[in-house]
Amino acid sequence: MVRNENLKEYSLKEAKNYKIHGRTDEGQEPLPLFSQGSGIEVNVTGSELWIDVEVDFDLYEPWIWTAVNGAFLSRQMLMPGSYSLCLFRGMSPDSVKNVRFFRELQAMSADGGCCLLIRGFRSDGAFLPVSDRRYKLEFIGDSITSGEGTYGGKTDMDWLPMYMSVSRNYARMVSDALDAEYRLISQGGWGILCGWDNDPRHNIPSRYEKICGLAAGERNGKLGAGKPYDFQSWKPDAVIVNLGTNDASAFNQPEWNDPVTGQTFQQRRNPDGTYHPEDIERLKQAVVDFLGVIRKNNPESHIVWTYGMLGYDLTFAITDAMNRYQRETGDTNVAFLQLPAATEETVGSREHPGEKSHARAAKMLEEYLRTVL
Amino acid sequence: MVRNENLKEYSLKEAKNYKIHGRTDEGQEPLPLFSQGSGIEVNVTGSELWIDVEVDFDLYEPWIWTAVNGAFLSRQMLMPGSYSLCLFRGMSPDSVKNVRFFRELQAMSADGGCCLLIRGFRSDGAFLPVSDRRYKLEFIGDSITSGEGTYGGKTDMDWLPMYMSVSRNYARMVSDALDAEYRLISQGGWGILCGWDNDPRHNIPSRYEKICGLAAGERNGKLGAGKPYDFQSWKPDAVIVNLGTNDASAFNQPEWNDPVTGQTFQQRRNPDGTYHPEDIERLKQAVVDFLGVIRKNNPESHIVWTYGMLGYDLTFAITDAMNRYQRETGDTNVAFLQLPAATEETVGSREHPGEKSHARAAKMLEEYLRTVL
Amino acid sequence: MVRNENLKEYSLKEAKNYKIHGRTDEGQEPLPLFSQGSGIEVNVTGSELWIDVEVDFDLYEPWIWTAVNGAFLSRQMLMPGSYSLCLFRGMSPDSVKNVRFFRELQAMSADGGCCLLIRGFRSDGAFLPVSDRRYKLEFIGDSITSGEGTYGGKTDMDWLPMYMSVSRNYARMVSDALDAEYRLISQGGWGILCGWDNDPRHNIPSRYEKICGLAAGERNGKLGAGKPYDFQSWKPDAVIVNLGTNDASAFNQPEWNDPVTGQTFQQRRNPDGTYHPEDIERLKQAVVDFLGVIRKNNPESHIVWTYGMLGYDLTFAITDAMNRYQRETGDTNVAFLQLPAATEETVGSREHPGEKSHARAAKMLEEYLRTVL
Amino acid sequence: MVRNENLKEYSLKEAKNYKIHGRTDEGQEPLPLFSQGSGIEVNVTGSELWIDVEVDFDLYEPWIWTAVNGAFLSRQMLMPGSYSLCLFRGMSPDSVKNVRFFRELQAMSADGGCCLLIRGFRSDGAFLPVSDRRYKLEFIGDSITSGEGTYGGKTDMDWLPMYMSVSRNYARMVSDALDAEYRLISQGGWGILCGWDNDPRHNIPSRYEKICGLAAGERNGKLGAGKPYDFQSWKPDAVIVNLGTNDASAFNQPEWNDPVTGQTFQQRRNPDGTYHPEDIERLKQAVVDFLGVIRKNNPESHIVWTYGMLGYDLTFAITDAMNRYQRETGDTNVAFLQLPAATEETVGSREHPGEKSHARAAKMLEEYLRTVL
Repeated sequence: MVRNENLKEYSLKEAKNYKIHGRTDEGQEPLPLFSQGSGIEVNVTGSELWIDVEVDFDLYEPWIWTAVNGAFLSRQMLMPGSYSLCLFRGMSPDSVKNVRFFRELQAMSADGGCCLLIRGFRSDGAFLPVSDRRYKLEFIGDSITSGEGTYGGKTDMDWLPMYMSVSRNYARMVSDALDAEYRLISQGGWGILCGWDNDPRHNIPSRYEKICGLAAGERNGKLGAGKPYDFQSWKPDAVIVNLGTNDASAFNQPEWNDPVTGQTFQQRRNPDGTYHPEDIERLKQAVVDFLGVIRKNNPESHIVWTYGMLGYDLTFAITDAMNRYQRETGDTNVAFLQLPAATEETVGSREHPGEKSHARAAKMLEEYLRTVL
Repeated sequence: MVRNENLKEYSLKEAKNYKIHGRTDEGQEPLPLFSQGSGIEVNVTGSELWIDVEVDFDLYEPWIWTAVNGAFLSRQMLMPGSYSLCLFRGMSPDSVKNVRFFRELQAMSADGGCCLLIRGFRSDGAFLPVSDRRYKLEFIGDSITSGEGTYGGKTDMDWLPMYMSVSRNYARMVSDALDAEYRLISQGGWGILCGWDNDPRHNIPSRYEKICGLAAGERNGKLGAGKPYDFQSWKPDAVIVNLGTNDASAFNQPEWNDPVTGQTFQQRRNPDGTYHPEDIERLKQAVVDFLGVIRKNNPESHIVWTYGMLGYDLTFAITDAMNRYQRETGDTNVAFLQLPAATEETVGSREHPGEKSHARAAKMLEEYLRTVL
Repeated sequence: MVRNENLKEYSLKEAKNYKIHGRTDEGQEPLPLFSQGSGIEVNVTGSELWIDVEVDFDLYEPWIWTAVNGAFLSRQMLMPGSYSLCLFRGMSPDSVKNVRFFRELQAMSADGGCCLLIRGFRSDGAFLPVSDRRYKLEFIGDSITSGEGTYGGKTDMDWLPMYMSVSRNYARMVSDALDAEYRLISQGGWGILCGWDNDPRHNIPSRYEKICGLAAGERNGKLGAGKPYDFQSWKPDAVIVNLGTNDASAFNQPEWNDPVTGQTFQQRRNPDGTYHPEDIERLKQAVVDFLGVIRKNNPESHIVWTYGMLGYDLTFAITDAMNRYQRETGDTNVAFLQLPAATEETVGSREHPGEKSHARAAKMLEEYLRTVL
Repeated sequence: MVRNENLKEYSLKEAKNYKIHGRTDEGQEPLPLFSQGSGIEVNVTGSELWIDVEVDFDLYEPWIWTAVNGAFLSRQMLMPGSYSLCLFRGMSPDSVKNVRFFRELQAMSADGGCCLLIRGFRSDGAFLPVSDRRYKLEFIGDSITSGEGTYGGKTDMDWLPMYMSVSRNYARMVSDALDAEYRLISQGGWGILCGWDNDPRHNIPSRYEKICGLAAGERNGKLGAGKPYDFQSWKPDAVIVNLGTNDASAFNQPEWNDPVTGQTFQQRRNPDGTYHPEDIERLKQAVVDFLGVIRKNNPESHIVWTYGMLGYDLTFAITDAMNRYQRETGDTNVAFLQLPAATEETVGSREHPGEKSHARAAKMLEEYLRTVL
């Protein structure tokens, strides 16, 4: 390789001009990318650009994707270590290139060692300011919002980072269509009240007010994941919730037992198959409470609860809770929107919505958001 | 024209083998087709088939469409009189042709003189039995279900029969995709509680239990439109309600005054723009009551309330009512499904959903119904 | 029906403002519509418009379709007689409506009695000038250009007017997309040199220079069908030829015998399946000659020979002839364009290209024409 | 990272079971991947798979893409060095995974240092036989077949490896649709007779009979690129040529001068814009000759010359040559097929066909090949 002798190393501080995507502890250097959709964006001149990263994990490797001038170019698995990745080479040096580097993998509650940090850049060009997009959108969800199933074949059933993405995720599609920045808080298998397997710790609301309450482990803690999130720093025009799928699943699963504390939990069905009234009630209350939490932190944002990409089972429970929330608070800046269920034709790997399903849902959500933004 | 000397005239009684589509007073001869989607289907041999009709109206002319072997062939306006329409000519005489003749125009509450009757057929072939389709679906709605806007250009704003249809209607699309027979009860401008202009007489529930409570006038009365409908005679697998759009509109309209009785009616908004609690409450009660009526008459049918093709405004009101209905009755065989709102790209004439919007909604509804039928 | 007392009868002369589509003898009154795509267009105010027609045929009935303000509204079979058809009713009287009335059925060489004449209009409005479209396109072809197969089901195999159309025809689609007027000269089963069955009389070139050399019979003769066509009167920007499909077929058919004269004709294959050199040569010469005829009559028009919607067999024969034509004449204003062959997915009735196939071909041809017009 | 202690290193010889894609010198170890679409495929059990590669280049870095179980997973730039890339991790060990690893970048005539070699694998599973696909297809072309423009934004105009691909290339799409293996021989800017800039050395035929006549440099020479290709080793069902675009361009470019030898070359136009007869003649002869070369080496293969994705200018020249070739040889197992030109809507980066254009062309070519294979 003919080495480019003009490459200069830039720490983030030195690069100065860049935009951080996703919730993170922005003061950290290197900068942690905790969740899918977290990333960094630059406008840069020069012929060549590299990004310096630091990567680690115990079990689940992070994936990333990159875009130059708005177009998808690469997607790859990252191995542990501290190294540089080339984002482009050989381009006309004078033009300004918009480059985005995004984490594909959700925050990994199941792997405390999983982290991806940005140290800086190498370039022979100059870093220019990155302008804001027109809107800001926050997405809160489960495996659907983690993009599980958006890569991989229909028969693939393993639970793997490589099948998750933001690059083929409805959240990214909606945001690009609306010229919006996006932040995603989601975790596969988690719910409003409990996880798919009745694990009551696996509820998203309990993690929502931290920078990234879903990033496990001591190291992520030190990187700021557990700090309170500053909701003033980035005010979304809309908060899109996409939860309920795992809560529906819990009603079909056996009781969860905490092997340590002996605690148990179960969302029960009546003998006739209907939901046990107490259990559906606590789920509804969790919806009401979570709406309250979201509103408290986002007083001006439109909140839309989306639901359905993996079945419409809890439509009545969620809307009942939302009606109650509205009665109790008078808050009318909330909406409920069903998104089309994945079908044989649109499903991806792991029996999750595939790219086509995400695209369909994104279109409907985008159209809806156009009417309220 | 070389006359076909072998044509024989058949009254319906003589034809014997045919299938009636849509609610009607099946004992009548000639047979009235009261609503869009009402029609007659035959399997016939021979080279030629004519249908004998009787047509009248004061203001709004009926339109019809025909299909041979499942394929759309013609669509036309009918003028008053008693005459024959040729459905096919010159076909291979031995093959069996499946022929369907459908009314395009909704029952006309605004034109008591509007009627379309089938007297019989002329053919040189034989009439063979028509088999049932796999499912039966009943659709209850407003202008959307009357197919308003499915024909005509985007700038066309007149309220005219020619812009209404069943041929480009989501109800037909869903039914064809599922191999289902369909019956439609709908009226443009009408609602659950009142019409778009607050006219409280324009509520669909009040007409639901008659054969065709929407067909106005003395003549339609004599033809049986006002008779109680025999719900035992045709048990739908699913009843699809698509109402609420005009009830939403009423909240934005001035008070309705009955010029004769002086009665007034209005769905009011509070000064802050929210719905007046009493008024939204009576709307919800109307939803609850109508679900009760549908269920009473269709004890086994799945009921799905669809909503959204012209906006999602009443999502919370409808779901709140449905939740209440379920609490009060324990009836869990009901569902709520939003259909994608028409957009600039999919809208038709009269600012109503166009063919593309109907196709999109039909796909989502079809997919949903596949999961429950 | 409440009669409209303000309807006034207009002969074409009285209407004055109208545009004739398709080749016809424009001095005739009533005005004959000889071919599919022939028709009449008006811009009219008023609430109601009728068209007065005169129809006859021995075997094959004409079909028509109508459009108001650019949108398809009706399609129907016409019976013999002299009568009026209502094109719209009840519209806002002040607005100007653009109304088009088109023949769907090709000129009928097989039915000398087949004719469709326009006598005039009835309206309560005024007739305003109709502006020209941006381009003029002439299409010359066979059953594909006659739209055979664009209506009807996949299993329908009868040769019937109802399966032919201009409304779902690539020629109309291309023209609408390019804002062009169109004239069609085509006949199912005919070729460049001979018909699908080797009938040498069934060649399109022999009829091209007449107003409508394909309309058989004495009556059409009196209506002017056989008069020389005045190529000066309407100069197409492009002439699109779509011929060859039946010439390819002829090589697979037995010898044709004229029962009267005893004349025979056959396009032969060699024992090894290749084309007999003399026979393929006379076909090529027919292509060369026809290009000469088209050019002579249309000195400025771009000529594009399209081919392939029912198979690409004669690609080499046609291009060889076109190369020879170019060598001999130096005429470079000609092109050859393959259109995608119909597939299982896009085929219509009678194993002919269906609406989807026409749409695909139209897109490719439209895109091509944009680069040369 | 938790290390997988069970990984075992396999040279290709040790892996034994694998399938090589693309022309290469199969005896080499490590195995060179010379062209886009060259790659290696394995069926492997185990939880983890790595591939050991050796990479080098002076200017233009190779890109690769990978697929697991038929689904695209990653695409990335490769830096120089000898290292391992992880293809999957953490999968269920017992299932058999089909893994494909493909070079995205064309053979680089402009970078003699560019090479990509496969050394072997690391896995904790076993390598099982890889079955053949149903068909074998060889594609010969220029930048279109090199996938130039299939990645990148519309405004991107640099000539860069990252914009080229086989993953979004019509050749791959056609092959996947037909269940075919594919081999690609192509070079951006090259033609049948000369390059886009009249450089007569840049003609594909001169390189066709070597393993990879387009891979420049001493090292590629040692790797076997310049050896004669053994056409017996892999007999394509069809050879698809997609050349002519640069030959058309040459007629619009100034004379080429060899700075060293002083040799000049130009495809000239006459003053009236038509092609100079001698120059178009030598182009035609090059077509004739190349067809002869292809046929000599592939006596049984169907040869289809495709053309048009960047304009139809040479349609007559190519078909004239093909007609001559047929006359001279009697070879009828050849065809000519136009592929739809890229449009504003389907174009990609560098004013080359984008993914949508490739998809459209692939569909038409796939459909054609189904009729002859």
